[in-house]
Amino acid sequence: MTEPHLADVPDVLLREFAAVVGETHVLTGDATAGYAVDWTGAFHGHTPAVLRPGSTAEVASLLALCGDAGVPVVPQGGNTGLVGGGVPLHGEVVLSLARLDRLGPVDTSAAQVTAGAGVTLQQVADADPALDLGVLIASRGSATVGGAIATNAGGLRVLRYGPMRSQLRGVEAVLSDGTIVSHLSGLVKDNTGYDYPGLLAGSEGTLAVVTAARLQLVPRAAGPVTVLIGLDSLGELHELASRALREVPGLLSAEFFTAAGLAVLAEHAGLAPPLRAPVYLLLEAAGPGAGEDLAALAGDLPVAVGTTAADRARLWAYRERHPEAAGFLGVPLKLDVSVPAAQWVRLASEVAGVLHAVDPDARVIIYGHVADGNVHVNVVTAAPADGRHEEAVFGLVISLGGSVSAEHGIGALKAPWFPLVRSDAERALFTRIRSAFDLAGILNPHVLPR
Amino acid sequence: MTEPHLADVPDVLLREFAAVVGETHVLTGDATAGYAVDWTGAFHGHTPAVLRPGSTAEVASLLALCGDAGVPVVPQGGNTGLVGGGVPLHGEVVLSLARLDRLGPVDTSAAQVTAGAGVTLQQVADADPALDLGVLIASRGSATVGGAIATNAGGLRVLRYGPMRSQLRGVEAVLSDGTIVSHLSGLVKDNTGYDYPGLLAGSEGTLAVVTAARLQLVPRAAGPVTVLIGLDSLGELHELASRALREVPGLLSAEFFTAAGLAVLAEHAGLAPPLRAPVYLLLEAAGPGAGEDLAALAGDLPVAVGTTAADRARLWAYRERHPEAAGFLGVPLKLDVSVPAAQWVRLASEVAGVLHAVDPDARVIIYGHVADGNVHVNVVTAAPADGRHEEAVFGLVISLGGSVSAEHGIGALKAPWFPLVRSDAERALFTRIRSAFDLAGILNPHVLPR
Repeated sequence: MTEPHLADVPDVLLREFAAVVGETHVLTGDATAGYAVDWTGAFHGHTPAVLRPGSTAEVASLLALCGDAGVPVVPQGGNTGLVGGGVPLHGEVVLSLARLDRLGPVDTSAAQVTAGAGVTLQQVADADPALDLGVLIASRGSATVGGAIATNAGGLRVLRYGPMRSQLRGVEAVLSDGTIVSHLSGLVKDNTGYDYPGLLAGSEGTLAVVTAARLQLVPRAAGPVTVLIGLDSLGELHELASRALREVPGLLSAEFFTAAGLAVLAEHAGLAPPLRAPVYLLLEAAGPGAGEDLAALAGDLPVAVGTTAADRARLWAYRERHPEAAGFLGVPLKLDVSVPAAQWVRLASEVAGVLHAVDPDARVIIYGHVADGNVHVNVVTAAPADGRHEEAVFGLVISLGGSVSAEHGIGALKAPWFPLVRSDAERALFTRIRSAFDLAGILNPHVLPR
Repeated sequence: MTEPHLADVPDVLLREFAAVVGETHVLTGDATAGYAVDWTGAFHGHTPAVLRPGSTAEVASLLALCGDAGVPVVPQGGNTGLVGGGVPLHGEVVLSLARLDRLGPVDTSAAQVTAGAGVTLQQVADADPALDLGVLIASRGSATVGGAIATNAGGLRVLRYGPMRSQLRGVEAVLSDGTIVSHLSGLVKDNTGYDYPGLLAGSEGTLAVVTAARLQLVPRAAGPVTVLIGLDSLGELHELASRALREVPGLLSAEFFTAAGLAVLAEHAGLAPPLRAPVYLLLEAAGPGAGEDLAALAGDLPVAVGTTAADRARLWAYRERHPEAAGFLGVPLKLDVSVPAAQWVRLASEVAGVLHAVDPDARVIIYGHVADGNVHVNVVTAAPADGRHEEAVFGLVISLGGSVSAEHGIGALKAPWFPLVRSDAERALFTRIRSAFDLAGILNPHVLPR
């Protein structure tokens, strides 16, 4: 890593920042520490200053100052990203959107709400007792609206409601020259001009700083039922999940994990398996007939059913604690990949084999979202982590027509692999799009290599 | 209108076109007539040549030739647009995508298909007996995939499946310098780089020429039931439609029209009303319990029910023939507007009044998609059609936070009103985005003014 360019932010600029947001909201020195490392501790950076604007106008003034001075900026939300996209790895100024925490009244006739970038996803979900946010991710309590848009967050209900992009009905954002663009009226249909809100979703803070969003809400799930089903093979599991997609109209989630991960959780976290099988499918559905539909689907297979909140939480824990499982064995490499539906069984069946070919003693734990073709591959390496593990997994994924990042983004972590999944022509286009938005060339320069 | 620049395409360029696609597929003179006017006859243009490429590579070669020569190009699909976006109004070359009509095999495991730009929406809908295209528009038999993407087509099932953008899982497109960008693997989750497929949706042929698309299909509606309900007021109608959205899980469509339009259809098209009321709500739902859900919703209101294909078609005809209704009275001005859900009753109630204030003898027929906040306003004018009618309607729409184009696009028709709904900052951004894609500056120059 190159030396952070802390000297690039002169005192006079710090004073100009303070004139915009107040001295309290320009953090320097030790006060910046928590903003310079991600929540997992995997990415460590340094920053000369953390700026905490309290309004869109302040964001605009700060970006104009940074743009004029050519000072690189990393926007940061809840800092729950998994690819280092929100960490000042090269001494960038951190623009924290946490104080943009205004949550507007819910428009119940449209089932929409306008939320500041710093509002957490949980706060959006709790805004109205009859409504919910369609996106459900484990970090819902700390991940924020702005970050979830920037990374196009996916999670546990994509099969029903799509990712964060699908919830967007408008955004307000600031370009790096301080220009504000805003389109928050929340129209379901509006074919006037280019859909830049959708483009900002998944742009990882490289195009503009989202300051607020108009979000579509969904009906809160009525009478949710959760089942955990044991199966003999990934092929059978995929087939059953595909049937669930067709035959269970109220389906919300279709998650999988394996005996390998569950054994680790049983040993280290005391999670006793409710049933024993090589692979597990967790399904959740809601609405009229959901319980009957799931029971009909499970047939004679071993199954555990949860209808109360406590029982459902108990079943979900087997899946939701899987991200921790590999951590009990060492420091895991976390790879988030996806393939077309028809290739999912091959990916899930073969990924451990290709890893063991380069690192016979590696421990591999897989789990994820079966309906989305998405597998989270966690590897505790025995051989040196010199890129060989990524090469093995990504090579398999690409041979199956898949993506090296299903829902986490490219960030810093996957930048070296970006050219494997996007052509020269596409990356040249991305660079031009980026220049069209980021006139000052200062937004997240280390993310999405040009 | 300025004189078409027919002289701008020299014979040598025509010969180069022919070398790419064959002489048969370079149309000139009288053979171009059908491509120079839209299907309604509202937009008349002229073109020096219609080019009919048979492959993406041919599209790339043709665009490279046009780009080098600086010859403006209008891409054209089924030519069913309503705002003049596909007509060579200023003597542009027409690039017809009709021959890109390859429809790939349906991937049933993903419920996806890859379709050439020239495939009709009906062909996509018919590709698999168990699956359907989520977008249903009246022109389904002639509108093509490329044009439906370029205009982000909406239609009758947006409340359930979203517009064309929501069906996209990837595109192949050609930039104006002849570069091909392609991302057709159909991944449900793929956070690698910018979502340019979504941006091309609704870009009206100004960014790139879409040559193929990977489309998500939806389950074919099982046991659809259609009901036509008579109500006393637009307020009651909106309330009932809102209840339907909440209480009928299988809801597919919620359409409205009024006694004014139905009277015209009864007189001129022999469509006898099945029941009499000031306003009508047409609902369609499918799946388990759909009929019971709709019956419960209608309660004691006057209702006509269709469960057979013939009965459903009969009820749909009242709504689907409304676009013709105003035509029996004269040449109508067709305005397609939308507002936030909470403002829909005001828009639908007040639009005739604001029109009569500027043209007391105008005939006004409204109908449309109540769940989307979308109203189609058809006006047969008595006063001169000098813009006063648009000003009156758009003024009301904008005062309610709405859009001057819900689903038709800006095209040529609405170009004068574009600055009313998009800020200077947004339009400047659009211009830069356009330049990032259309390096040669030749794509649909008369659409989306810079």
